[in-house]
Amino acid sequence: MLLLTPGPLTTSDRTRAAMGRDWGSRDPEFIALSEHVRGRLAALACATDTHVTVPLQGSGTFAVEASVQTLVPRDGRLLVLVNGAYGRRITDMAARIGRLGAVLEVAEDQPVSPTAVRDALAADPALTDVALVHCETTSGLLNKLEPIAAMVRAAGRRLIVDAMSSFGAVPIDLRVAPCTALIGSANKGLEGVPGMGFVIAEAAHLAGCGNNAVSLSLDLYAQWRGFAANRQWRFTPPVQVVAAQAAALDQLDEEGGVAARHARYQGNCAMLIAGMRAHGFVPYIDAAHQAPVIVTFQIPPGSWFDFARFYDFLASRGVLIYPGKLTREPSFRIGCIGAIGAAEIERALQAVGQFVAGQGQGRPGLCPGPAGA
Amino acid sequence: MLLLTPGPLTTSDRTRAAMGRDWGSRDPEFIALSEHVRGRLAALACATDTHVTVPLQGSGTFAVEASVQTLVPRDGRLLVLVNGAYGRRITDMAARIGRLGAVLEVAEDQPVSPTAVRDALAADPALTDVALVHCETTSGLLNKLEPIAAMVRAAGRRLIVDAMSSFGAVPIDLRVAPCTALIGSANKGLEGVPGMGFVIAEAAHLAGCGNNAVSLSLDLYAQWRGFAANRQWRFTPPVQVVAAQAAALDQLDEEGGVAARHARYQGNCAMLIAGMRAHGFVPYIDAAHQAPVIVTFQIPPGSWFDFARFYDFLASRGVLIYPGKLTREPSFRIGCIGAIGAAEIERALQAVGQFVAGQGQGRPGLCPGPAGA
Repeated sequence: MLLLTPGPLTTSDRTRAAMGRDWGSRDPEFIALSEHVRGRLAALACATDTHVTVPLQGSGTFAVEASVQTLVPRDGRLLVLVNGAYGRRITDMAARIGRLGAVLEVAEDQPVSPTAVRDALAADPALTDVALVHCETTSGLLNKLEPIAAMVRAAGRRLIVDAMSSFGAVPIDLRVAPCTALIGSANKGLEGVPGMGFVIAEAAHLAGCGNNAVSLSLDLYAQWRGFAANRQWRFTPPVQVVAAQAAALDQLDEEGGVAARHARYQGNCAMLIAGMRAHGFVPYIDAAHQAPVIVTFQIPPGSWFDFARFYDFLASRGVLIYPGKLTREPSFRIGCIGAIGAAEIERALQAVGQFVAGQGQGRPGLCPGPAGA
Repeated sequence: MLLLTPGPLTTSDRTRAAMGRDWGSRDPEFIALSEHVRGRLAALACATDTHVTVPLQGSGTFAVEASVQTLVPRDGRLLVLVNGAYGRRITDMAARIGRLGAVLEVAEDQPVSPTAVRDALAADPALTDVALVHCETTSGLLNKLEPIAAMVRAAGRRLIVDAMSSFGAVPIDLRVAPCTALIGSANKGLEGVPGMGFVIAEAAHLAGCGNNAVSLSLDLYAQWRGFAANRQWRFTPPVQVVAAQAAALDQLDEEGGVAARHARYQGNCAMLIAGMRAHGFVPYIDAAHQAPVIVTFQIPPGSWFDFARFYDFLASRGVLIYPGKLTREPSFRIGCIGAIGAAEIERALQAVGQFVAGQGQGRPGLCPGPAGA
């Protein structure tokens, strides 16, 4: 099965093979593995001098909520920048604990404007923290991290970045884009398996966050102090997931790091978009804002196209794609991250071409064939 | 490596092999796998007519906290029954959200008394819910679920049971022991790998719990409604962990179900205790209250025994044990659950015997040898 999904995604045989043994979660061998992963993650963000990696069990959403609960003070207020479902999810997290200050929402095909962030912060001195989703997996749009980080820093506020689908896929340098927290997940651009997220958090701020979290499990401060005390996870870690992550990080290094991976993903993305365009499908996001992570395509006009049939057809040929998640426009998504390259994208495009031809659509939307229902 | 730990523990090759492939988390094939696991778990507790299984990403602690946050109403108050670290952990969870009503704490080597529970509930009408840890992994003590469940039901309150280390290892029948929630984990008696917990929750109560959880990630009601809507996990599931769980459940069935597994664990436990006694080690828990899950041994008197050296010696022979967790008494623990039987316990006991002999302790505590430091 070829997974063209935003994660879980296609992993390498070597990454999955790393799950083939048992580990004692409090044994020195596992502790060393876990510490190695923590160190590598902070290094990928160029943040070893200022930040610490705090891994957390669960999906990436758990790590985002742990950041909101722990890093926004009890009397703080969060400005959430929204242009998709993951931004909206952060507003829910903050509202539940009474720390939502304001929401700056733009259309799902538009990046958040750095000057709008500056203006929103200037308008409300009660806002202490800002949350941004770097790559909105809802659409595949990449927000501009560096200018927004600069604006937030200039305004004297803190920035929490959900980099779930961009971490490992797009270069991020926290020396250039200052963030209080950068949140990632094992199973996206790092090409591991799902089961853990992590927060690369500014140590100087985290040190004062001991009384903020309302949840014990999601208390990032306590999780950090647990590692500081004995280098162990507070609660049972997903040992095989951590082992897969270590193996996946080795392969990232061997590939040439994030820059090389970014280049491969850009190649996948360009090939996917060109091929889909040739089959008549139109990307939803403007090329200037498209992340090389996942591409949203508009459902083509006319009644010939049925997503469920399209999905099943591709699945029957071993290719899994992803449903759409836009609020208004009907759409579907195809991922371009994972342990895949040109051969896999080509295989997917061939299956798409067969489907389109089978529907009697030579170039759907352009010159619909006579058999189009 | 032989893991004589409370989980992660020794798993079978077949269970780990189930992690060898990729799964699309929203693909029908994974959805079917996930639904199969949900159904099997409720069936193991004889609760398919009344309860629903709600799996949750993360360690078992996350599932316990999700239960406390979601099942105890905002104006409810929880009585926590404590005789170990896991009970104390529940008090922390409830206190953080202002729903801790009272704590009934007894010594770590004593089971909670059903009549004491009755009296505590009679004394405070504000108490709406009760939390019990079935097997306290701190010590290996098994609390008496059925009489406590009967007392709580008779008092018109609800019972939340942390069955993390007992589920799958000890038979539990919710028709006989009525509980609002029974919480388990993939990587204990079910012999899966860590990365998910689950709550077998009374549907009639859960249906009214939509506004209770303070956390989005730990909102058990929303997680349940997510499954009800499209049979999918709300947030990215640990797909390989779920696949391992399905394989482990198949093997549980083939073994003869929980009764057969319980018998195997009882055999492991009896053999472990007899063998350790022969080497001079004394169990901490009275045999009447000992769960066949993990055994706490007292650190023997005299200065000859050093736990770090003992641990390293056993580890060098491929046997991993567990440190102690008692509040006062120095101790260590050896697990007897996992894909292990008499041969593995014998192997561990031989290594223990070699260590003891190497310390010049023929039968430590009984007739210390001349080389005893």
